[in-house]
Amino acid sequence: MTVKTAKELGERRIIELIQNRLDKSEEMVVPFGDDVAATSLQRGLAAVLKTDTLVGKFDIPPGMTYFQAARKAVVMNISDFSAKGVQPKVLLASIGLPPDFTESAVNDIANGLNSGCREYGAYLIGGDTSQTSDFIITCMVFGTAKTKNIVPRGGSIPGDILAVTGSFGKTASGLRLLLNDLRTPTALRRRLLESVYMPKARFKEGLALAGERLITASIDSSDGLAISLHEMRKMSGKGFEITKLPIDKDAHDFARLHNLDIRELALYGGEEYELVVTIRRKNWEKAVRAAESSDGFLTEIGVVTTDPRIVLKENDEVMDIPYRGWEHFKSEHVEFE
Amino acid sequence: MTVKTAKELGERRIIELIQNRLDKSEEMVVPFGDDVAATSLQRGLAAVLKTDTLVGKFDIPPGMTYFQAARKAVVMNISDFSAKGVQPKVLLASIGLPPDFTESAVNDIANGLNSGCREYGAYLIGGDTSQTSDFIITCMVFGTAKTKNIVPRGGSIPGDILAVTGSFGKTASGLRLLLNDLRTPTALRRRLLESVYMPKARFKEGLALAGERLITASIDSSDGLAISLHEMRKMSGKGFEITKLPIDKDAHDFARLHNLDIRELALYGGEEYELVVTIRRKNWEKAVRAAESSDGFLTEIGVVTTDPRIVLKENDEVMDIPYRGWEHFKSEHVEFE
Repeated sequence: MTVKTAKELGERRIIELIQNRLDKSEEMVVPFGDDVAATSLQRGLAAVLKTDTLVGKFDIPPGMTYFQAARKAVVMNISDFSAKGVQPKVLLASIGLPPDFTESAVNDIANGLNSGCREYGAYLIGGDTSQTSDFIITCMVFGTAKTKNIVPRGGSIPGDILAVTGSFGKTASGLRLLLNDLRTPTALRRRLLESVYMPKARFKEGLALAGERLITASIDSSDGLAISLHEMRKMSGKGFEITKLPIDKDAHDFARLHNLDIRELALYGGEEYELVVTIRRKNWEKAVRAAESSDGFLTEIGVVTTDPRIVLKENDEVMDIPYRGWEHFKSEHVEFE
Repeated sequence: MTVKTAKELGERRIIELIQNRLDKSEEMVVPFGDDVAATSLQRGLAAVLKTDTLVGKFDIPPGMTYFQAARKAVVMNISDFSAKGVQPKVLLASIGLPPDFTESAVNDIANGLNSGCREYGAYLIGGDTSQTSDFIITCMVFGTAKTKNIVPRGGSIPGDILAVTGSFGKTASGLRLLLNDLRTPTALRRRLLESVYMPKARFKEGLALAGERLITASIDSSDGLAISLHEMRKMSGKGFEITKLPIDKDAHDFARLHNLDIRELALYGGEEYELVVTIRRKNWEKAVRAAESSDGFLTEIGVVTTDPRIVLKENDEVMDIPYRGWEHFKSEHVEFE
């Protein structure tokens, strides 16, 4: 018998192994694998919970401060709440610190956690600290929502409009700039790095769209637009035809400047916290207004299809968008099943 | 200006630094520093949350299996819920794994998490995995309780009986046995190791005592009996006179066999998940019956005093019980403030 290691298994298989061994609660109102976990309370309410971890050596790009890293650890979690339309109420933070971290780093981390919470109306009310080899922040978010208002990943219906709350490729450009030290005009550089260092969750848009029950499915795009679409497809069985890639203007300029593949940056970048949603055609105008009244916007990028493939259709050319991306533990880009 | 590191600050000071930088929510119904965090929901209910982390290199004694380690990560958290009298409903687990962990270790971890949850009526409904240098499990527990029924650390009133749900020193003996490889008769060895490998939270006792509102204050003894008493004192300003140390019989035998200080083992051992509670004298009989109907028991060990000292009174001799113990990050035993 061959013994597989975590590195060989990869994150997706590890999570599957764990889930297979868990007794299932009948009060779980969101399936495993969605952006959040939820359990029913009384009167149609659900307790909504989410945990996600920032590991310094993988998740902190060069030049990011401790304040920004701690704030990002919060935003990562709140972005998932935003996708489900759930108001985050309180957070806990479990902080792992190497013993040589300084007092000022600890203060910056605390300020970053607090700032991230307050931006979205939440409070940090507890947590713990441990001595660890890596710098690690695990946040846990809690909130309540009407069970029927929690937007699933898998609710798309063929004919629904596929839309996003922003443009793609900017954060990937900023990361590429940092990792490869690419020369970039100052103003463009500043905007690209801002998107890396100070990501924003689409909190108001998510609450407005879900609150008026205007979206049939939703996910945050933190693993990249392509993976997000494939994750939605896994839950619904429905495909997507994309007719217009939502490419960020700055990403476009950056890609041209350095001769990079802009489609690759926009589809597979990741670390972008936009919402990817599907909307019944009759609700489209209302949804656009709801996003705008939240100081955001919605861009139509395609349609939900009965055909389970995910394709990009441009100038009468139809291309498959493969299901691939960064696999944690394997530490490489892989093609998923 | 001298720059202090985490190692020089120590865990207590690090937590203080963080708390000082947080905006405070008016809906927090349990103060920082108690066993759990809680925020008010509607109708007198509170959402109760707790996170605690098991770090492999510090918290897994020799010979403990992955199943037992994962189960312990759950029990550590549920013990704090038990002290507050709160039923744990669901847990999330954030698991950090080095890349060389095997598939069978992952399965054992999943089974241990599930088993720990199910023992106490809870379910694991979510979590995440990350690649880390250390093996780490951070659990987060959620439950709801009537706000007025959450037992505080600081509610002791002079004259209250001080009681515990079990005896002390057994786990410390087991740890000493393992770390120093001390020869011990088989049956005794087995019982001592059982207490190390398969700790139990005083779940039923905690729920019964709190449910009938029979305890004025409570804490779990995971940091050792002495520290637990000092932590209660910090919150209430009241002291304790201990008249009978609740020494475990096996610990007593083990200490005699190896010429160890049994008081040291019982007061400063830690990793024991008993409840330390205070009870109005008029409620004593009821409390004893409540504990017994939960298949447990209560032992009176002393009394709450107006004098804020914590003393042991034996044979007319009165000794101070110092506030000292293991300080994380400093990695040594220290005298606390």
